[in-house]
Amino acid sequence: MHDGRKIKVGVLGATGTVGQRFVVLLADHPFFVLHALGASQRSAGKTYALAVTWKQTRPIPAVVRDVAVHECSPEFFSDCEVVFSGLDADVAGPIGVFPCLAPLFAANAPLEERFRSADFAVFSNAKNHRRDPNVPLIVPLVNPRHLSMVHQQRALHSPPLQKGFIVTNANCSTTGVVVPLAALEKAFGPIESCMVTTMQAISGAGYPGLPSMDIIDNVVPYISGEEEKMEWETLKILGGITEGDDGRKEFDMHAKQPLRVSASCNRVPVIEGHTECVSVRFARRPPPSPQQVREALLGFTSDAWTLSCPSAPRHTIFVHEEADRPQPRLDRDYQAGAGVSVGRVRQCRVLDIKFVVLANNVAIGAATSSVLNAELAVCKGLI
Amino acid sequence: MHDGRKIKVGVLGATGTVGQRFVVLLADHPFFVLHALGASQRSAGKTYALAVTWKQTRPIPAVVRDVAVHECSPEFFSDCEVVFSGLDADVAGPIGVFPCLAPLFAANAPLEERFRSADFAVFSNAKNHRRDPNVPLIVPLVNPRHLSMVHQQRALHSPPLQKGFIVTNANCSTTGVVVPLAALEKAFGPIESCMVTTMQAISGAGYPGLPSMDIIDNVVPYISGEEEKMEWETLKILGGITEGDDGRKEFDMHAKQPLRVSASCNRVPVIEGHTECVSVRFARRPPPSPQQVREALLGFTSDAWTLSCPSAPRHTIFVHEEADRPQPRLDRDYQAGAGVSVGRVRQCRVLDIKFVVLANNVAIGAATSSVLNAELAVCKGLI
Amino acid sequence: MHDGRKIKVGVLGATGTVGQRFVVLLADHPFFVLHALGASQRSAGKTYALAVTWKQTRPIPAVVRDVAVHECSPEFFSDCEVVFSGLDADVAGPIGVFPCLAPLFAANAPLEERFRSADFAVFSNAKNHRRDPNVPLIVPLVNPRHLSMVHQQRALHSPPLQKGFIVTNANCSTTGVVVPLAALEKAFGPIESCMVTTMQAISGAGYPGLPSMDIIDNVVPYISGEEEKMEWETLKILGGITEGDDGRKEFDMHAKQPLRVSASCNRVPVIEGHTECVSVRFARRPPPSPQQVREALLGFTSDAWTLSCPSAPRHTIFVHEEADRPQPRLDRDYQAGAGVSVGRVRQCRVLDIKFVVLANNVAIGAATSSVLNAELAVCKGLI
Amino acid sequence: MHDGRKIKVGVLGATGTVGQRFVVLLADHPFFVLHALGASQRSAGKTYALAVTWKQTRPIPAVVRDVAVHECSPEFFSDCEVVFSGLDADVAGPIGVFPCLAPLFAANAPLEERFRSADFAVFSNAKNHRRDPNVPLIVPLVNPRHLSMVHQQRALHSPPLQKGFIVTNANCSTTGVVVPLAALEKAFGPIESCMVTTMQAISGAGYPGLPSMDIIDNVVPYISGEEEKMEWETLKILGGITEGDDGRKEFDMHAKQPLRVSASCNRVPVIEGHTECVSVRFARRPPPSPQQVREALLGFTSDAWTLSCPSAPRHTIFVHEEADRPQPRLDRDYQAGAGVSVGRVRQCRVLDIKFVVLANNVAIGAATSSVLNAELAVCKGLI
Repeated sequence: MHDGRKIKVGVLGATGTVGQRFVVLLADHPFFVLHALGASQRSAGKTYALAVTWKQTRPIPAVVRDVAVHECSPEFFSDCEVVFSGLDADVAGPIGVFPCLAPLFAANAPLEERFRSADFAVFSNAKNHRRDPNVPLIVPLVNPRHLSMVHQQRALHSPPLQKGFIVTNANCSTTGVVVPLAALEKAFGPIESCMVTTMQAISGAGYPGLPSMDIIDNVVPYISGEEEKMEWETLKILGGITEGDDGRKEFDMHAKQPLRVSASCNRVPVIEGHTECVSVRFARRPPPSPQQVREALLGFTSDAWTLSCPSAPRHTIFVHEEADRPQPRLDRDYQAGAGVSVGRVRQCRVLDIKFVVLANNVAIGAATSSVLNAELAVCKGLI
Repeated sequence: MHDGRKIKVGVLGATGTVGQRFVVLLADHPFFVLHALGASQRSAGKTYALAVTWKQTRPIPAVVRDVAVHECSPEFFSDCEVVFSGLDADVAGPIGVFPCLAPLFAANAPLEERFRSADFAVFSNAKNHRRDPNVPLIVPLVNPRHLSMVHQQRALHSPPLQKGFIVTNANCSTTGVVVPLAALEKAFGPIESCMVTTMQAISGAGYPGLPSMDIIDNVVPYISGEEEKMEWETLKILGGITEGDDGRKEFDMHAKQPLRVSASCNRVPVIEGHTECVSVRFARRPPPSPQQVREALLGFTSDAWTLSCPSAPRHTIFVHEEADRPQPRLDRDYQAGAGVSVGRVRQCRVLDIKFVVLANNVAIGAATSSVLNAELAVCKGLI
Repeated sequence: MHDGRKIKVGVLGATGTVGQRFVVLLADHPFFVLHALGASQRSAGKTYALAVTWKQTRPIPAVVRDVAVHECSPEFFSDCEVVFSGLDADVAGPIGVFPCLAPLFAANAPLEERFRSADFAVFSNAKNHRRDPNVPLIVPLVNPRHLSMVHQQRALHSPPLQKGFIVTNANCSTTGVVVPLAALEKAFGPIESCMVTTMQAISGAGYPGLPSMDIIDNVVPYISGEEEKMEWETLKILGGITEGDDGRKEFDMHAKQPLRVSASCNRVPVIEGHTECVSVRFARRPPPSPQQVREALLGFTSDAWTLSCPSAPRHTIFVHEEADRPQPRLDRDYQAGAGVSVGRVRQCRVLDIKFVVLANNVAIGAATSSVLNAELAVCKGLI
Repeated sequence: MHDGRKIKVGVLGATGTVGQRFVVLLADHPFFVLHALGASQRSAGKTYALAVTWKQTRPIPAVVRDVAVHECSPEFFSDCEVVFSGLDADVAGPIGVFPCLAPLFAANAPLEERFRSADFAVFSNAKNHRRDPNVPLIVPLVNPRHLSMVHQQRALHSPPLQKGFIVTNANCSTTGVVVPLAALEKAFGPIESCMVTTMQAISGAGYPGLPSMDIIDNVVPYISGEEEKMEWETLKILGGITEGDDGRKEFDMHAKQPLRVSASCNRVPVIEGHTECVSVRFARRPPPSPQQVREALLGFTSDAWTLSCPSAPRHTIFVHEEADRPQPRLDRDYQAGAGVSVGRVRQCRVLDIKFVVLANNVAIGAATSSVLNAELAVCKGLI
């Protein structure tokens, strides 16, 4: 439970796309107070208002306009307990087009480790640590129980840490699919196969991301590394934790019942909101009916809500009854994008059940997930 | 074989979206000469240039500018042997929004029947007769052998017909998927399951089709009736013809090896070109490798090409090697949109093989298919 | 001044685009309580949730979901003092494409007159009465003083009215340009010439409005009747009221100093927010400098704000300093779209000063203007 | 007159956006044969097919697929007489976003000079030499007479050149407006003032150009340096050449009758084709009527056509009669984009006459202009 005190937090990569969202979410937060902002050397020393190319549809929060931006080094964040890292999403897109930019971001992963070593709680939106066997990969509406791995992460650190740890959130497209899958596994037991085809928004590639010449009046049927991420991350998130004879814990990658995931990822000319067509086969025979699936999705409540995390959505999964919903432009901002929308639940002639998912890639698919993970960590006494 | 004579043809619904494409394709055709244009009562009596709201990117062909438009009644087409019907695609979209328009088109189906009864060869892009047990549903790159059903269609007509018949082409999204499926079944035997998720262009809905408010910065994950069409038409097209004890022929709907098709249809803000993510499971174990699949697709040559149909594409299926192709904006106009593009052939973790298809919905997905079907009928001596 | 009582209001055309915005704005309003909803015969008898095809990005307000929709006839609005009419915007677009729809809306103008005759205060977004010599055409940030014409309107009605009147707001594109023009005339005296080129959002054409085939990857350099509206309405709004010898008042159409307005109107693929490039020549020589213009725009405060109208924006005109602002996607929602943004104030080589204006066409350009006009009427004791 | 021989030509910046267009235009040209391709050091040594990221909608011409790419240094172009430079357009966009890319292109201007010094005829699409007092700035449909300045350019070079020279073409947005202005000045004498507001396509910014996040569902009312270019280049192009007492020739910048040009430049989400709203005031009183203007535009024939330049459009200016044309998506490809479209010729309440222009920015606005300029130089015996 949160005791009411305000926890000082910092944002790494504060001028980037995800960093700007962190700033918006943390500017007036019941648990956290925004205390330090980190960015590249080029920005260091400027006020935030001068350093940032603000691309949000609401103005820069007044409380951060004149905050000085520092380099992303622990000594500038000494009063903070928590840092949120938004470095990665901005890297995702441009590298292909501008390889000369890659070095700017190369220090990213070690940087988060430096903050952990300095005993900060690091909530990262970057992909770098997602496959680390001691780092929880958490979609806050799905697997907050994986936060328990933090104890082992601290203990195995050299030297062991008192407070420091890294928690990552999932890829934006993974997030959309695991929320309903988690609800379905909770209600009907293991899922055996999952086919998912995504239609992802351009904001998922950060800024500058896709050149407009490449995506207006077009679909790009490929996103580098994305399908592998979805197929792998889903297993870590939906799987359990097993304990070896030596007491060592391990993410089991859904081992008790192998889950096969096949993803096809596409970029479409949509600004915000990933739409995903999902089809699943359950282990259980006969499988649940579409109506049972609808009810299970509707009835699913996240621990984040039960624990009263301030950013948790009232409706973890909003189930649409209209034939043509969810749609990104109309539904992405519902509950500030913190929940997930599902529609068109119906039978699949190849697997069992198919449906459409919409998840706001810049909210629950990115910064909102990190903030919710931090809220969960507070509620569970890890911070 | 075509003997060199020019066959007079007419276009029904000549002022509509598909009708305009027919006019472009037929304005300078080696087999056909455009002789009569039919449209609604409102247009009758005007010159084509005045009756049409021309929406093509090339100017109205000079040869039709001053042709008088008639009502769609057989007496105005008396010198023609063939009529192309482009009435349906324009209906597809607006009805939902403007039910008051429906009656304008209600006479559509009987109208094609009236032309058949008057002994015209009717090549229709409309959906009305696709499920008729005596009407071939032909994707010209796939199943021209089904044209043989025309004899039974004539014989069963009351009174029996000498020359008249109706041949339909498939839904634009069905067309994209059946071409590679046909190539794969030819090379590797029956396909057992096929999952397909489409990202369809707005031109597939005709004009006016989708309101811009509904599709800019958006995906609409639903197209009325489209999934059913894809799931049903695929079976008729890829299936064979069986003959009963009474000599009566029947489309067998892929009966020898049941084929399960599951389609999820989406509309995306793309002007032309349907992109489809397809995954298939073969009956044959072990299944072919991605490389074998690539070669089978590349090696597939349509009968339309072999028979020297003038509109047949040299490359029935163009196989892309780049990771991010095909893309609608870049690839839809290759070979005037008469072939199909495939890319990203790779293994699927749930079924066997997955890939991306691009088909130009207004070319091979609509008018070009009807014209190719007519060319095939000429080459096979049916006209 | 508003005395704190809640005034019952109705919405005509409540299921249309502008009607839906009225519903959003009035669902929780300090002066007004939404009491009756009117729509076409087809919707009458249904609940609002069933009658409407809701196209807003926020859900239908709970308070109106189950309200019964009535026909737009005064007897169904008997408890209301005020009605807001949102019938017109939905008509603007489709007529061109579907002339068969026109009759559905033909009863629009007389309908507003019927409500006036029944002693309702009618705030209309329709164009029908804008040129009426006794009906004020009010942009609430500009000319609320014109509300005084309401007395003459009542007196000349036959029979004279106690409470009824019609007040219209301006065309959405006119609204964008007159706000800064009013600020400049207040600071520097009459403007002599104004050239304006608009880039208007598709939502300005209502729903269904523009077919997507017509506007994706395109500009349409023509909007029927729009240039004439801008050139005429600007004169009525910025002009004064003169009184004849017989005491009869008249809008003077900026007569003391003729103002020449030349408008070029374009539709661009933007969902919301009209961008306008404006150039002006002042009567005063030498003209003000760009910096003086910037200060005058920034310093302009509307009477609506001074009178504490609840929907009035704090900043009537927000002046951007960045070289590339305002932009519709980033700036249209500032202050809920109730103010106007101006940027790029600089010298013009042909006239004196040029700048860019952004106005939210569905907020201050439509429903928000009507609501603000009603708030002004309350504050001025006309209701 | 062209004597039938094929002139060997090279392309500098052949892998860029404009370079790719040069390759398409020159792959099968009656005067020129594509002999050498130059690009950055990174591409040198590769075949063109491997070096280029091909972004055209038609496939790479077979004749260049396997041509080796060289660095842009004269020794690799020794058999060529002419080089086309396409370096600049690719720079235009990204610099703002990625200043780190600027150095890659910095050697651009001196590079063209190096080719001139080596006695090549250089036709440049870059802006670097447009303001050079001895370099003609030529829009081939407008001012080929300015080619005569080439003699002075050679003579003043140190050492004097036999064959080398640089000719530039204009900015893409300038090109659109000067063609109709030239036609009007030819028919009605000097124009006194011109106001122009542009709605420019994203392809005008090269590749990668605008990030998609910045332009989808948006207008950017600013293009760095563009307004100054339009205001200055128009004067050089439409002006004459005066000769001083010392025999030195000079571009007179429309000096005999000062011409005031005021430009407002906007970027819109259109892929290709700049739309411009133009208003002009003539010196002549009374001014011509809209009908006279229409006829003058229609009757205007370029010297390029008269001289039988193979890329010259039959219709220099196509005049649309429909109220809503030209539109970029429908009209940009007419005559392969080599001409200009004008529509909506009507009276202006502030100046005299206003109209809408459409020019294909990647055809007549870029590569096609350079090629036409070279054709003109051949026809005039300069090559």
